Order: sequence, then structure tokens, then C-alpha cells
Amino acid sequence: MSRLNTHIAHATADRIVIRGVDLVEEIIGKRSFTEMLYFLSVGRNPTGAQVAILDACLVTLMEHGWTPSSVITRLVLESVPGEMQVALAAGLLALGPVYAGTAEDCAKLLCEITDTSGGSDDRSARTANDLASAIVTRYRNAGHAIPGFGHPLHKPNDPRALRLLQLADDMRISGQYVAALRTLSSAVDAAYKKHITINATGAIAALLLEIQIPSDLMRGMAVVSRSGGLIGHVKEERVKKASREIWRFAEENIPYSEQD
Amino acid sequence: MSRLNTHIAHATADRIVIRGVDLVEEIIGKRSFTEMLYFLSVGRNPTGAQVAILDACLVTLMEHGWTPSSVITRLVLESVPGEMQVALAAGLLALGPVYAGTAEDCAKLLCEITDTSGGSDDRSARTANDLASAIVTRYRNAGHAIPGFGHPLHKPNDPRALRLLQLADDMRISGQYVAALRTLSSAVDAAYKKHITINATGAIAALLLEIQIPSDLMRGMAVVSRSGGLIGHVKEERVKKASREIWRFAEENIPYSEQD
Amino acid sequence: MSRLNTHIAHATADRIVIRGVDLVEEIIGKRSFTEMLYFLSVGRNPTGAQVAILDACLVTLMEHGWTPSSVITRLVLESVPGEMQVALAAGLLALGPVYAGTAEDCAKLLCEITDTSGGSDDRSARTANDLASAIVTRYRNAGHAIPGFGHPLHKPNDPRALRLLQLADDMRISGQYVAALRTLSSAVDAAYKKHITINATGAIAALLLEIQIPSDLMRGMAVVSRSGGLIGHVKEERVKKASREIWRFAEENIPYSEQD
Amino acid sequence: MSRLNTHIAHATADRIVIRGVDLVEEIIGKRSFTEMLYFLSVGRNPTGAQVAILDACLVTLMEHGWTPSSVITRLVLESVPGEMQVALAAGLLALGPVYAGTAEDCAKLLCEITDTSGGSDDRSARTANDLASAIVTRYRNAGHAIPGFGHPLHKPNDPRALRLLQLADDMRISGQYVAALRTLSSAVDAAYKKHITINATGAIAALLLEIQIPSDLMRGMAVVSRSGGLIGHVKEERVKKASREIWRFAEENIPYSEQD
Repeated sequence: MSRLNTHIAHATADRIVIRGVDLVEEIIGKRSFTEMLYFLSVGRNPTGAQVAILDACLVTLMEHGWTPSSVITRLVLESVPGEMQVALAAGLLALGPVYAGTAEDCAKLLCEITDTSGGSDDRSARTANDLASAIVTRYRNAGHAIPGFGHPLHKPNDPRALRLLQLADDMRISGQYVAALRTLSSAVDAAYKKHITINATGAIAALLLEIQIPSDLMRGMAVVSRSGGLIGHVKEERVKKASREIWRFAEENIPYSEQD
Repeated sequence: MSRLNTHIAHATADRIVIRGVDLVEEIIGKRSFTEMLYFLSVGRNPTGAQVAILDACLVTLMEHGWTPSSVITRLVLESVPGEMQVALAAGLLALGPVYAGTAEDCAKLLCEITDTSGGSDDRSARTANDLASAIVTRYRNAGHAIPGFGHPLHKPNDPRALRLLQLADDMRISGQYVAALRTLSSAVDAAYKKHITINATGAIAALLLEIQIPSDLMRGMAVVSRSGGLIGHVKEERVKKASREIWRFAEENIPYSEQD
Repeated sequence: MSRLNTHIAHATADRIVIRGVDLVEEIIGKRSFTEMLYFLSVGRNPTGAQVAILDACLVTLMEHGWTPSSVITRLVLESVPGEMQVALAAGLLALGPVYAGTAEDCAKLLCEITDTSGGSDDRSARTANDLASAIVTRYRNAGHAIPGFGHPLHKPNDPRALRLLQLADDMRISGQYVAALRTLSSAVDAAYKKHITINATGAIAALLLEIQIPSDLMRGMAVVSRSGGLIGHVKEERVKKASREIWRFAEENIPYSEQD
Repeated sequence: MSRLNTHIAHATADRIVIRGVDLVEEIIGKRSFTEMLYFLSVGRNPTGAQVAILDACLVTLMEHGWTPSSVITRLVLESVPGEMQVALAAGLLALGPVYAGTAEDCAKLLCEITDTSGGSDDRSARTANDLASAIVTRYRNAGHAIPGFGHPLHKPNDPRALRLLQLADDMRISGQYVAALRTLSSAVDAAYKKHITINATGAIAALLLEIQIPSDLMRGMAVVSRSGGLIGHVKEERVKKASREIWRFAEENIPYSEQD
């Protein structure tokens, strides 16, 4: 027989308990979605500042106009009009290592820097700088972009990242991970001999770590956030039918040829 | 050339505008995720009461323990461990007409009742009762359950629905749709000659209509809500590996047979 | 305890049995994929003609260049490059009631015609004509296109449908369902006062019914078929990166506007 | 303007061309699905032996009873009964690095062995053995199973692998990749001091390489193959509703607990 259990939820005829808390008595009407998202992801209640930071990260990622996820959602909606959740889920599949997972990957680098530097004395500060430089060298040698840095449009600075980091400072949330991000930023600039922006997912990586959301759940936060934005695309697509135009573009502008 | 446009979002090097609002100056750090979800879905800012009602609906649907969506997410996570968003999206595909779409379908019935009854004088009240009875008869004749009513576990009453409706009353959000739900409930009880509970999705249908979220976006709210809950399942599954047990159950308890 | 069983497959250490047949001894190296697809879908072995017809239907749907499914697969591949099956599955989600389900819906109409007409005497022939006319009237009144008829590009005739129907005639597969399709075609032409083509999915609907594949599995045949075609898109996309061009098109040609 | 093109397909009113070949004149009724799958994946027509090997690999992976993919497909079918392709696509998402991608990963190891050993003289044969031993050491040191080897049920030998390799020998398809698999098998057995089976995906990896299907398309072959098997699960699930039993199992046997 199974000896497994789950800590998540349990329902009887007149009561639903979620991680030890009564849904009807203590959650509905008393806690916000963002508070519950934190509670279910981290396993304990957030402080007010933690909720504010999580909200800030979530609203940052909700919407960025035309992206692979919004184009996919619109194409699937056109194809399966009666099941909106299928269109949303299809778009969410695209939140992977290229367009949303950089928060996760950047967060791992920040943990790599902080795991060793730990304290704040001269020796460990030097070590953090050294670790950051080594990371930059490693990525450059492999020909990879450094997760959390650079943006094709938002340069020299990504205004979202500036705002998020300022908010973390203002709310006294900034700690070792924001410090590590700034150390890494200096190492990036030194290696490239110019300023490369910290992008939105870089700042989000640092802020989510500061509020104890682990790197391996960050992509889940992107899913929650973007799912909200994609609802707006569903609503607009039902009226504007942009997916047909996008599809027609491919037919007209990427023509068939038997030779290259 | 395309003459289409989009009203959703636009980015330049130093600015991102979302439906006419500056993301960095006016949204990050100033609005909650739930406020933005309302703004992107409905197209204008919510009142405080509307945010509270939307939050209440969202936290109600986040988590209900073992469901098709949570089992699916865990099985996909076990199969594709490196891409968490794939596991979440797979679970979200299941939020369809059987397990989450009943809010949408119930909302359509409530609109059917309110579209005609409109006012509050005797004649229209009688008409609302008649419309509700006709709906119940139509569903019973077709052999279909009435969306928003009944629950295999939560009886005689679904405590979530009671709480949500009370909250709507307390916040003075209850209007024609909550009234229509209660009218429909009376017609259901009369037809079945016993009390059938209004379930959670029935109450959510009425509350979301009261805050002007249309029925054809309600399944999107379920996607947002449940995506948060599924993150908790991902976190637990990485440690407990329940999906293997579930799979083994199928192998052991649903055996192969050449005959029925 | 569960009293359920499954008729599909069973494995022991040295043997795998699929619907009563030994995989290693009787299937691998002895049966083609198409034969097994028929066997698993219908529950018995196909004749040679049935295999030929199923192959003809499968190769017809494999590839049609730029379609929602191929655009979606390419966008997801760009976003999740390490998990090819995710890109394929995302494209397959789009094979729904708009772009591939018309075979299923057309097949249901053909069954509606044949269920009653049955024989070949004058009375039933007249009845088939009457039923077909009634179907056309019903769809026109509802403002819906008739599944299996019409094509934006392939007119006056869809060459694939002509070829498939000729093949069915040549192989003596054509029976009541091909006859019903031709009856329906006459009713369509009479109602519209011009020739509307039978399209590829219309012909496929009739042919698959003739080989005893039920309408409610036809969308599965589209999934198998198109999954093969999408592999070619994955291969090309890895080199050509067309998805980036398609995405850029949306950004450049469907601009942001605060007003319509 | 876009200067991209595609080599895949093109349609005019009366003609569809797929990679330079006329669909209606040269494909429908003349080529099997497996031949076209090869043609679209590899870019040229297969020999008869190549078709036979591809068919053998495809039928091997179609069906293995209860697996994550079949459980997922059934749960989604129960949840979204009207869109069969969604249930199939959800199951196909699970064909990743754990349950179907081992062919891809094993194939990469075989290429690693053959890339260097090349010829057949003593020196290179010794090198192949050395490379195989180095691979085994590398995987053991990392604590990873060697892709293509071992099976929880099929031991000491996976009968599917034996059959596939014998078929390749009989058809004179076996070459450097089958040789590399056998070299790797010897190195595995030597390292573990007992016989570890070559499993089905290991044999498939070698066979698909022998017919020039590259490792990075192998997961696509699994998608095609398993999509056929999942149709059988859809058909059975509509009658047997096993998904409800599987879900109930989780509720009853993996209970809620606030403590571990």
C-alpha cells in the first residue's frame, strides 16, 4: 500500500483545509491572490513587503505586447475557439529557457555568488567579485549570453529593472541577492567594456530570491503572471482576428522555394 | 498592408505602455496583480470592492487537492523535469467544460434570466421565476446537470459558495446576477423536491458577472487561479514523487484482459 | 477495489502483448505503422485496400505549408529548443473544429444521411436527397459553412478530394458514405446555385467511414498525420528561424494604438 | 522585407507541391505514411529496407499500456471531452528526456563513439572500446543511468531490442551504429559486472541512425508513434472511464497530512 501523503489540501463535506488553513473561514475574503500564491509556493505567510515585491514582479511580466506566447495563444484561439484554456496553456508552454526562464538561470548565478561570499568583510567581497568575473568568463567562452543581462530594445537601461531594484531598496528588501546582482553587473560591464543593462528578469531573479522564492519555482511565477496578460489577448483576438493576418504574412513573405 | 492594430501594449527603449498606462511609472509598485488582472480583462480600473471580490473568487479556485489538473501536472513534471511551465500548462489544459467551465456555463444561464427580467416589479420577478423554471426543465429533459449546482462531496451546502455570496452581500456587490442565481436555486430545489447546493463555480459565476467580468473570460480566471495552486503541486512532487505511485496504481489495479 | 480492466496492452519480463497479439513475434518487422494504427483504432486487422485508403488519407493531411499548426510549432521550438515534443504537441493542439475537425463534422452529416436512407430503392434515394437538402438548409439558416465543402484556394475543385474519391472508386472501397457525400454535394450546389468544391477533409470523412473508422476518432488520424509533417517544420526551423520573422511581422505591422 | 524562404510546401488552386513532389499526382495512393514520414524528415526517398526499419521502430513504441502519456491523455479526455486532439497533445508532452528521449540521448553516445573510431583497423577498434568505457565511467560518476540501457521489467533482456537488432542484421542495415551499440553494451556489462539489457530505445537509437535519421529528430518519431497508440486509449477511455478510478486512487491513497 501507498505510504505517501500530501500536505496541500483536504476537503470534507463542510470544510476545505489548505496547508492547515481553513479556506472558508480564513482565506476567502481575507487574503489576496498574491498572498495565497506566496503561501502555496513558500509554505508560510508573507510579510506586507514580501507581498508588495511579489506583486511588483508579477505585474512586470504580465504583458509585453507581441511575444511568442501572445502569438501562439491567438493562433490556438482561432483554431479551438470554444476552449479558451487551451489557447492560454499553449501560450504558456513558450515561457521556457529563452523568453522567461532567464529569471531562473540568473537566480542560479546569484546563488552561486552568494553561496560562497556569505559575509561582508573585505575578503568575501573580493571573492564575490572574483566569482562574478569567473561566471562572466565562463559564459563568454561558451558563447552564451549572461542570463538577466542585455535587452534588444531596452538600452542602455531596462526601465523595469531600475524601478524594481529601486522599489526593493525603498522597501528595505534588498540584501545579498541584490548585492550579488550588482556585483555581477559590474563584472559584465568590465568584461564587455561598456554598460550592459540588467534586464527585467535579472531584477526579478534578485527580488524573488530576496523574498525566499527559490529559483526552481520562478518559472511558475512567470506562468501565473503571463496567464493574466494572455486573457487580454484572448479578448482582443476575438474581435480583431490578428492571427489570420500573422498567418497570411507567413504565406506571403516566406515563400516556397526548391533552392536556397 | 495590414490595417490592424492592437490596444494592448507598446514598448520603446525607455518606456512600456500597457493600455495607455505607463508600466514603470504607474503600475510597478503601485498596483497589485489582481488589480492588473482586472484592468487587462475588463479594460478599466476596478473599485476596491471589485478587487476584493475578484481576489475572493481567485483564492477559492486555487487549490482543491487531487484533481485531474494536479495529477496531470505531476505526471508531466516527472516526464519533463527541466521545464516546469510544461507541467503547469498541461494541467491547465484540463480546466474545461467539466471541471472549471461550469462557471462560464452557469453565468450564461444567469444572463439568460437577467436579460429579460430586467426590472424589479412583480411582472418581471414572475418572469425571472418562469425563465429559471424553464431552464431547469430544459436541462432535466436533456439529462444534463445544471451548471453551478450540485457537488459530490459538499452537501447539503458548498461552504465556499455560502461564504462568497455572503461576502458579496456584505460588500454591497450583490445585484441582479446574485438575485438570478438565487431564483435559479429556488427553481432547482422545486424541480428536484430537495435542496441542491449552489456550488463554488455557481457563486463565482454570479460574483464575476456582478463585477463586469463576462462569461467568456471566466475560464481565464480559472487558469490564473489554478496556475498558482499547481506551483505548490510542482514543489511537493519534486520531493514526494506521487506520480509514480499513481501510475503504478493504474498498472496494478486496472489489469489487462482480452475479454470484458 | 477497482473492477476495471483494459484491453490494450500487457507486458511481462519477456513478452509484450498488444490487444492479444505478441509485439515481438507478430508485429515488429511484420506490420507497418499504418496497419497497426488501424488495428489499435478499430480493433481488428485491416485488409490491404483499407491500409491503402488509410495511407492515402494520412499522406494527404501531413503537410500544407504555413498553417496555424506549423507556425505554432515553430514559435514553441524557438522558445523551448530542448524539448521537441513540446513544439509538436503545441502545434497539434490547433487541429480542432476549424482546421482539421471538419472531417469529423462532415462524417457526422454523412452518417445522418446514411442512417436513414439505408437501401438503394427509389424511396430511400429520394429520402437521401431530402435529408441532404435539409442539412444544407439547416447550416445556411444558422450562417455556418457546411463541413467538408468549400476551400479558399482550391476552387472550383480541391484536387486532393478528386484524387481520394477516384482512388476509393478504383479500389472498390466507395459505398454508402461516398454516395452520401456525392448526394450532399449535389444539394450544396443546388442551394448555392454554383459548384462548391468537396474539400480534402470532406473526402477523407467519406473514405475513413468506408474503412470503418468512426467519426469520433478522425481527429486522431489528423494528429498522427500532421505530427509527421511538423517534424519537417522543426528541422527547417532550426536552420531558418522563420518564427523570429513572423513575430517581428506582428510587432511591425500590427501596431499599438490607443484608439481604433 | 523578409528574404526567408521555405522548402516544405506550396499550394496553388489546382496543385500542392511538397518538397518538389506533386501531392496529388505522385504521393496520394502511391506512397505510404511511413515513406512520407521519412521523406519529410530526411529530405529524400527511403529504400525499401529503410522503410521496413522505420516501420519496425514506429510499431515498437506505439503502445506500452499504462504509461504517463496514456494516463495523462485519459485524464484530459475526461476533462475536455469534445476536443480529442487536446487529450492526445497533452499525453505527447510527456515524451521527454525520461520516458522517450533516451533514444535521442543514446544516439548521441553512439555518434560520440563512431565519430572518432571511424575505420575498422585495430587501433580504431581499440579506440571505440576506450570511448565506450569512458562514457560508462562518465555516467556512473555522475550517478546517471546510461541512456538506452536497463529496464525495470524487461530483464535480463528487452525482447523488443533483441528483435529490432536481429531485424537490422537480417536486412543488412546494421553498420557502424549497431556496432557502436554492441561496443557500448560490452563496456556497460564490464563496468557493472553483470549483464544490463539494451532496451528498446537503445536499439531504436542505433537503427534510426543507420537509416540516417538524426538524433535530434528521434523524439519526433516517438511523437508520431505514440500518437497512434494514444488513439486506442481515447477509444477505450470513452467507455471505461478509467481516469476517474485513477483520480479516486490518489484521493484515497495519498491522503492529506499536516506532518510528514
